[in-house]
This record gives sequence, structure tokens and C-alpha cells, in this order.
Amino acid sequence: MVAQLEYIQRTQSQVQTENDVLTFTFDQLLLQRGGRLGPVTVAYETWGELNTTGDNAILITHALTGTSHAHDAADPENPRAAWWNPLIGPGKYFDTSRYFVICANVIGSCAGSTGPSSKNPLTDRPYGMRFPVITIRDMVRAQHKLIKHLGVRRLAMVAGGSIGGQQALEWAVTYPHLIEKVAVIAASAAVSAQAIAFNEVARQSIMADPAWLCGDYLPGQGPASGLSIARMLAMITYQSEESMEMRFSRNQVQREPVTAPTFAPELGGRFDVENYLYYQGDKLAQRFDANSYLYISRAMDLYDVSEGYASLEEALGRIRSQILFVGISSDFLFPASHVRRLADKVQMVGGDARYVELNSPHGHDAFLKEWNQLTAALRQF
Amino acid sequence: MVAQLEYIQRTQSQVQTENDVLTFTFDQLLLQRGGRLGPVTVAYETWGELNTTGDNAILITHALTGTSHAHDAADPENPRAAWWNPLIGPGKYFDTSRYFVICANVIGSCAGSTGPSSKNPLTDRPYGMRFPVITIRDMVRAQHKLIKHLGVRRLAMVAGGSIGGQQALEWAVTYPHLIEKVAVIAASAAVSAQAIAFNEVARQSIMADPAWLCGDYLPGQGPASGLSIARMLAMITYQSEESMEMRFSRNQVQREPVTAPTFAPELGGRFDVENYLYYQGDKLAQRFDANSYLYISRAMDLYDVSEGYASLEEALGRIRSQILFVGISSDFLFPASHVRRLADKVQMVGGDARYVELNSPHGHDAFLKEWNQLTAALRQF
Repeated sequence: MVAQLEYIQRTQSQVQTENDVLTFTFDQLLLQRGGRLGPVTVAYETWGELNTTGDNAILITHALTGTSHAHDAADPENPRAAWWNPLIGPGKYFDTSRYFVICANVIGSCAGSTGPSSKNPLTDRPYGMRFPVITIRDMVRAQHKLIKHLGVRRLAMVAGGSIGGQQALEWAVTYPHLIEKVAVIAASAAVSAQAIAFNEVARQSIMADPAWLCGDYLPGQGPASGLSIARMLAMITYQSEESMEMRFSRNQVQREPVTAPTFAPELGGRFDVENYLYYQGDKLAQRFDANSYLYISRAMDLYDVSEGYASLEEALGRIRSQILFVGISSDFLFPASHVRRLADKVQMVGGDARYVELNSPHGHDAFLKEWNQLTAALRQF
Repeated sequence: MVAQLEYIQRTQSQVQTENDVLTFTFDQLLLQRGGRLGPVTVAYETWGELNTTGDNAILITHALTGTSHAHDAADPENPRAAWWNPLIGPGKYFDTSRYFVICANVIGSCAGSTGPSSKNPLTDRPYGMRFPVITIRDMVRAQHKLIKHLGVRRLAMVAGGSIGGQQALEWAVTYPHLIEKVAVIAASAAVSAQAIAFNEVARQSIMADPAWLCGDYLPGQGPASGLSIARMLAMITYQSEESMEMRFSRNQVQREPVTAPTFAPELGGRFDVENYLYYQGDKLAQRFDANSYLYISRAMDLYDVSEGYASLEEALGRIRSQILFVGISSDFLFPASHVRRLADKVQMVGGDARYVELNSPHGHDAFLKEWNQLTAALRQF
């Protein structure tokens, strides 16, 4: 819905937000797949106040191309002003009048935290592809350093969707005694071969763009068409056959045509769905770093909650939090059946897990659209 | 299964086939979307003999990247020697000892029929993107000229899957009195927004390759990496989450790594599914023309059986043949529900339609794999 509204209203002026992004820098992080990264900066935002006992904090974890801007205190009622705005704020589910809500940009990203576009201290130039392989666990360990820095002694909750859900799950397994409740939304123990395949097509599109230059493009001169194509594909996987049919069907484009990523001769006209995908591709290419896309999508592929444990059961058996799994009926990137299976597994090893399914045609993106169902699901806690 | 076998056995020598491809050339074809194409050559193969009354002919129609080589008379028991070999031959369902079986390369393609890589008579150079927009109906009208040329007075059957199924349906509507039976496999009245979207991402990948040169590449110097990426994506849509999981799961590559379409740093190893997609991409790029991919995938998008009629019902009401619709339970490119709905529509307007569903995990590709189920379904005729 957010993306659709943006598409429809794109001629309106961009929403201006007061964006108080803070940063925390620490020396280094030893990485799960080997090597170290340092110094590491984590960009974050917070809303509400930490109490004196340091136990009213909630950590919100974001998805692939997300940022720390989960909530907009200056424009709290505008669902487009921040990516989880309808869930966060005074009186909302994540109640900033009671909780200290934190959202940090993941490492590997490009919205303030250290990533491939950051300066490599060894060369004084952007890391590019010399950035090390990072994992979901590395992202979570950097977030852990941040919350300690902020004086948080115990997290009331960790919640996120998609790779934000992978992070929430990883929190539950890595820091079991630190967290009261965890909400894992539209994420599973490890993605399927199909999801890896889609991600790899997207990465190949980026790397096939001659402007990629093996990752050594200059700021603002990155592989825009490759990244646009990657995003076009990703946008299909975030929706569903049904939702795309509802929105676009086979309609010819009615609105002003958007520039396609490449010279695209109009072979028998342009379908509205194509115009929409061009728009979404271009929008991401303007705001996101292509190398970050490679690294974070790879972290999504590589994530397997059982890594480093003798078995999946051993990993899940570590969980001490109440844990809510939310599947989405029409999600084909993280199928609901996989999410349900994971919830069952946690229960089987003695965890306090429950499963709720959002009945939505909106596919994976429902975790950014179905506000009422999502709030109702979270209230099961 | 065919693709999987090829992948596994790719170190074995290529199967050599006796390929008696014939051609038929006619002056010109007036095109559905305007303009004309000419001269037009149609490459085709036939098996069996036409009877004296000219009514024992069967036309087999092929999919996007297919050729006329549906059967291999020299190697009839090898499922890899021709794309529908297990269905065609003496004693097979399409019995070449009783029927005169014809398969023609579609116009727009690159396996002998006139397409973008053919010489434009006006310039004496390949058409490239000066090739006109062609539709499924244009393909069918070219096939109609061919069968008249061959002396066929009546078709005992037209059968095909995917865009071959679109062609079969178009035959039933355009030439209702010429055909006894029609089998439409894994195809519907018109593809969905999602299928158009996947196709457009594939096309953008091709056109983003600098070697594409707006379609004016020289033979053998086409956009191989772009076409490989397009094929990688298409291969995902031809399978299913379940079948990819069965075949690849999250296994790391075991076999010799295949060269990726682009310089691909191994971020945390290579998954077997990635290696498989590189292999499939490269294989198509070596045998198929990129501009043909653009035109034929577009014909798939543009196809709407109701085009030129007052309604879908009017179009379907023209059908006089017995018509069998075959859906595939796990197909997400042409969902079984769409195929079933089409069969219902034909029945509603008085047609002799039936519907059979292949229960298969293999996705869209099941029409090239589920030989026993497919034969059983066709025997319902």
C-alpha cells in the first residue's frame, strides 16, 4: 500500500521529515565468516526514554533496503513518513510514551552505518568489494554493542520483518537472557533455494552493469540501471500474483511514462505494471548503494539460524523469550508454511512460541501494509 | 528433469541428431498489430505421412525458446534428443505411424524461421529492432500458410504447452472448422501482471547489456551476459519453490563451478542453485538470439485470446474442436486456477472443453517432464 500510494502520489512533493540520526562508533567487530571490520559506525534513531532500570527498550530491526527511520516523531500519523510509522509512537503498539524504541541501520547498509560505501581506513577510499562478507549475526552483534552503549540492560522486545525478522530470530538465539519478547515476521530459519536464486539474479543484474566497475564506482556514479533491474525483480517477489493482478491487471499505462532502466523500445505499448516497476527501480537506485545491495542480500541468503550449533534444535533450544512468528498467507519469498514450521520447531524444543498468519493478498510486503492485522497479531503478546 | 539431466550429464558428449529441418517461404504476412513482414520463411520438421484425404495431420507448437525439433526419429527413445520425444513417435501418443506430425519454428525465433536475426530485405542486414511487433496470432497465421502448403486439409490435433499452448488456443479460435482436437497445456487466455513483470525484468537485463547495441549486435557477438541473466530468471519461473528445494536446497556447489554471467565475487561460497542457473543461462546464450527473446516474450505478454472480438465469450464461442486444458498444480507462471477458469469459460459458452490437472512439484516445466501424467491426460481425448 505504501509503495502504491507513493506511485500514485509521486507528483506531490516529497514528505520532509526531521531525521535525528545518531551514530555510535566502536573499534572493531570480529566477523562470523572470518576477518574483522573496524572501526564500525552504527547509525540509529531512538524514540521515548530509557527508564532508570534500563529494561523498557524495544529494538526494531529493518529489512534489506531499510533505514533507521522506522518512526517519524514530527509526522507520526503519516504512514509514508517512516517505514513502520503506524506501529510506533505514543499510544501505538510500540508505545513511545512507555518504551524506549531503537532502530539501527544494519552494518553493510548505506544509511549511516559502516558498509561498502564507507571509507576503508587502509586505503582511504570506499571499501567497495573489499568489504568483508557480513552475516545477520554480525548485524545483530553490532546492534548488541549499540544497546549496551545506550545503557539498555534488558530488551522488552525485538521485532522485525523479512531480514529484520531474521535479525529478531538471531537475537533470540544469540542473546537469550537479554530479551523478554521477540516478534519474527515473514522470516524463517533459512531461505529456500528459490529465494537465493532470485537474489542471485538481482546481484548479477547489478554486476552486469558496466558502471559497477567491480564495485569501484564513485559516489553517485554507481550502476543505476543494474540496481533498478534488481529492484524491479525484488518488487515482484515482495508482492503476489493476486495483488499485482488487483493493482495492475493487464492495463496499459495511463499515467506519465517513467524512464525505463534501459533504452526500451515499446513493443506493442507499455503495461502499467512495467511503468510501476521502472518507477520503483529508479527510486531505489537514487537512494541506495549497489554494493550494499550485494552484501545485504547475500547476508539474507547465508542466514541459517543453526550455523555454529550442532543442530537446528540446539540453536532454537537456546531461546528463552516469548516468541511470536507471523507468516503471511500470500508470501512466496518467505512462505507462511516455512514460518509456521519454525514456530512448531521452537515449541517442540520447549520454547514459548506462537504462530499467527496474516491473511493478506499483499505477499511479503504485507508486513509494511497490513497495519490492523499486524497490530492484532502483536497484541497476542 | 530434462534440464536436470543435462546439468548432471553435461560432461558427456552432446547428443548428435539427424535434423531434417525443411523451410517454406511465402511473400508476406499482414500483422495483427499493423504492418507487414515479408518474405517470411517458416522452418519445420515432419514425421509420418500425410494420408490421401489430408486429414491425419497433427501440429505441435513450441514454447519461447523452442525449435521445430519436437521429435528425433534417429534417437526416438532419448528424452534429451528432442523436446517432446517421449510423446511423439511410432506407438507414442502422437503416433507417427498413424499421423503426419508437424512442428514449425515460430516466426520471430532464430531456429530457421524469419526473426530479428534474419536479413531485412530493405537493408540487407539483420532486422534487429526494426523487426515488427509480432503476436501469437501472427505465428499461428504463418503456421496456417505452412499446413496449406503441405496439403493438410484438416488438423486432427493441435497441441502445445506454455506459449505453445497460447498458439493452440489461438488455432482453436481463429480456425475453428479446421481442427478436430486441441490441447492447451499450461497456458491461459492472457498472462497475468506478474508474468508480464517477470518478462520485462528479463528483457531489461538483455537491453542493459552494452553488447546489445540497441539490437544491432553482429551474429555471435550478442548480449550473452544479459541473455544469461534473463534465462536465469526465467528458469526460476519455470520451476517451483518445492522443486528447487528438492533439487538444490541450500547445498553448496559440489560440481565444477560454471562461469557466471558476470564477474561474481564469491560472497560466502556458491550455492548449487546458483551454479545451476549460471549453467542454464550460458547454455541459452550460446544457442538463442537475444532479440528473438525480446520479441517472443513480448508476444507472450501481448497475447489475449479476446483481442479483436467483442468479448472473451465471443472469442471462445467460436471454438468447434474438442478442447483439453491441462493445468499444472505448482505452475506459478500460468497458474492452474487460470487454466481451469478458461476451461470453465469455454464450457459455459457451449464448447466441448475438459480440464485435467497435472499433480506435479515441477512447476511450469512439468509439461516437459511429467511424461506419464501428460500422456494420461491427453488420452482423455
